[in-house]
Amino acid sequence: MELKIELRKDLKEKPDMSNLGFGNYYTDHMFVMDYTDGIGWHDARIVPNEPFMMNPACMVLHYGQTTFEGLKAYKGKNGQIRLFRPEKNMERLNRSNDRVCIPQFDGPFVVEAIKKLVKIEEEWIPTEPGTSLYIRPFVIAMDNHVGVHPSHTYRFFVILSPVGSYYAEGINPVKIYVEDTYCRAVRGGLGFAKTAANYAASLKAQEVAAERGYTQVLWLDGIEKKYIEEVGTMNVMFVINGEVITPEINGSILEGITRMSSIELLRKAGYKVTERKISIQEVVDAAKNGTLNEAFGTGTAAVISPIGELYFEGESIVVNNGEIGPVSHTIYDTITGIQSGEKEDEMGWVTIVE
Amino acid sequence: MELKIELRKDLKEKPDMSNLGFGNYYTDHMFVMDYTDGIGWHDARIVPNEPFMMNPACMVLHYGQTTFEGLKAYKGKNGQIRLFRPEKNMERLNRSNDRVCIPQFDGPFVVEAIKKLVKIEEEWIPTEPGTSLYIRPFVIAMDNHVGVHPSHTYRFFVILSPVGSYYAEGINPVKIYVEDTYCRAVRGGLGFAKTAANYAASLKAQEVAAERGYTQVLWLDGIEKKYIEEVGTMNVMFVINGEVITPEINGSILEGITRMSSIELLRKAGYKVTERKISIQEVVDAAKNGTLNEAFGTGTAAVISPIGELYFEGESIVVNNGEIGPVSHTIYDTITGIQSGEKEDEMGWVTIVE
Repeated sequence: MELKIELRKDLKEKPDMSNLGFGNYYTDHMFVMDYTDGIGWHDARIVPNEPFMMNPACMVLHYGQTTFEGLKAYKGKNGQIRLFRPEKNMERLNRSNDRVCIPQFDGPFVVEAIKKLVKIEEEWIPTEPGTSLYIRPFVIAMDNHVGVHPSHTYRFFVILSPVGSYYAEGINPVKIYVEDTYCRAVRGGLGFAKTAANYAASLKAQEVAAERGYTQVLWLDGIEKKYIEEVGTMNVMFVINGEVITPEINGSILEGITRMSSIELLRKAGYKVTERKISIQEVVDAAKNGTLNEAFGTGTAAVISPIGELYFEGESIVVNNGEIGPVSHTIYDTITGIQSGEKEDEMGWVTIVE
Repeated sequence: MELKIELRKDLKEKPDMSNLGFGNYYTDHMFVMDYTDGIGWHDARIVPNEPFMMNPACMVLHYGQTTFEGLKAYKGKNGQIRLFRPEKNMERLNRSNDRVCIPQFDGPFVVEAIKKLVKIEEEWIPTEPGTSLYIRPFVIAMDNHVGVHPSHTYRFFVILSPVGSYYAEGINPVKIYVEDTYCRAVRGGLGFAKTAANYAASLKAQEVAAERGYTQVLWLDGIEKKYIEEVGTMNVMFVINGEVITPEINGSILEGITRMSSIELLRKAGYKVTERKISIQEVVDAAKNGTLNEAFGTGTAAVISPIGELYFEGESIVVNNGEIGPVSHTIYDTITGIQSGEKEDEMGWVTIVE
């Protein structure tokens, strides 16, 4: 498929790159392509990032048939632009698409389009430590029809946003509320897919946790309300007695790319990493008997987010004295080092944008 | 709040009212109001139904923070326009809003706005048996921000669509596939709310069922995969040995207004109606021992949809010889009679649009 490029003349003013926050600014251009039943994906183009016309009957507004991804472009000290495992995001987006009946697309083609788009927006990539250019691919149903069935037309977008740290706390440990009422996802549902539904389901619990002074929610499984699934919008890992334990992929948690990368790097560094069911009680017991060394979330937005405190059933459990531990720190430094180019890319995970 | 009205001059051509289908046509005008944190709902207006500008970063596209309702306006033989329990839709929409952190709104105000809108669009209300003017209120998050948190701005819409029967089969019995893999919703999730997520979750199972020749899916509970929840996008009722049994409200099924109305009407007519857990095995056993008299779905779109066949674990169970039964028929005639004005509104459920 050909990729048409239409550049805008009236470039936006760039924001203060030292005070970006997350998701507050968007670059001048975006990638778009359309899908029509019987034709397939067509009209791939890089165009000005502008509002578009939406019909109030558009299915995505009513039935949430949509998927998305999140990845980042980093500009290292030598000026090279790096993407981190973008092909994994495209593979996951196609798995998400399959779950909500959105047609498959050509992953490598979109990676190339993202590289072109990022190159065009090169000056939007911040270079301060902890900053990056967040890349948001997403697909939405475009039929204007209020009957419940898969759409016959879709639109694929990639928009870009220069970002600072996702959490105001940065790499500092966060306080986590173990949620025992609300549920994010369940076996047979949409939990493994990166789709709007899981995020809509998370808002209320997040709001309640925030009112109580907690940054994020730790989700338990929807069936027994016993096993740990995710933390906020991240995967979660525990270091117990030196062993790293993370919930196994079970259909209701997201297959995080930072999760996968952390596991590979930790194993390479000689850690024992186990993917299995882990109950909240096991974590509480480990904290009480002094064997819980660390806990941390993993995700693209924050990379690693150490957990300093867990609130569960009326009790507050402090993890590692509320400080970041050596495993979290090592993983954070290694991944961000690979992303910025300061560490060698021994795993072959980096795609250079030429 | 004041309601501003701006009518369009270039009225659309009306469709062939004898061949409408569902959701294919939209009227000339819509109701819109906006919400801004610190201001509340504002700028209520009836304006031309036109596409609007949407930013690609708009939160509803990414995180599905949206709710909706469905109700209908009917034009009886004397030309009067009727709404069926619209206040119940507004109450439910506020409950749905609460679940996904969308602010509450003034239900009676929106009912009045809907009445004005429907009156303006009076000529769009079809009068053939089984037809009506479908009313779709919905609310969407409007912040342009790709961080996961409740939006600070929202837009409330009401659009109208003249419709025929929701199912191509009309009131004829449909074939239902009992879904034992995919899950629609679970306790603690969004199941009771009328929000995009539940519909996104339903698409894949529906697609698989359709490929196998079934019209709809019967959903089992997400925990034990044993108890009946809903059928497609409807509530479900079974007549066993003359007793009407329907799944109890449990947080994961929708509190249907047609469900509620059917229960009240059946009890008034002398039927025993029980709201309780009912397992798929109980229904299968009843079918086998000859005590399953009828099964049917209830919902605004189809009103009553008789079930002629259930497919479960490799077996096809025929219900009432694949024919519509007396209970389904009575309920259908009573509700549609009240809606059209042909039956007396003894329950006080009808709102007349003057």
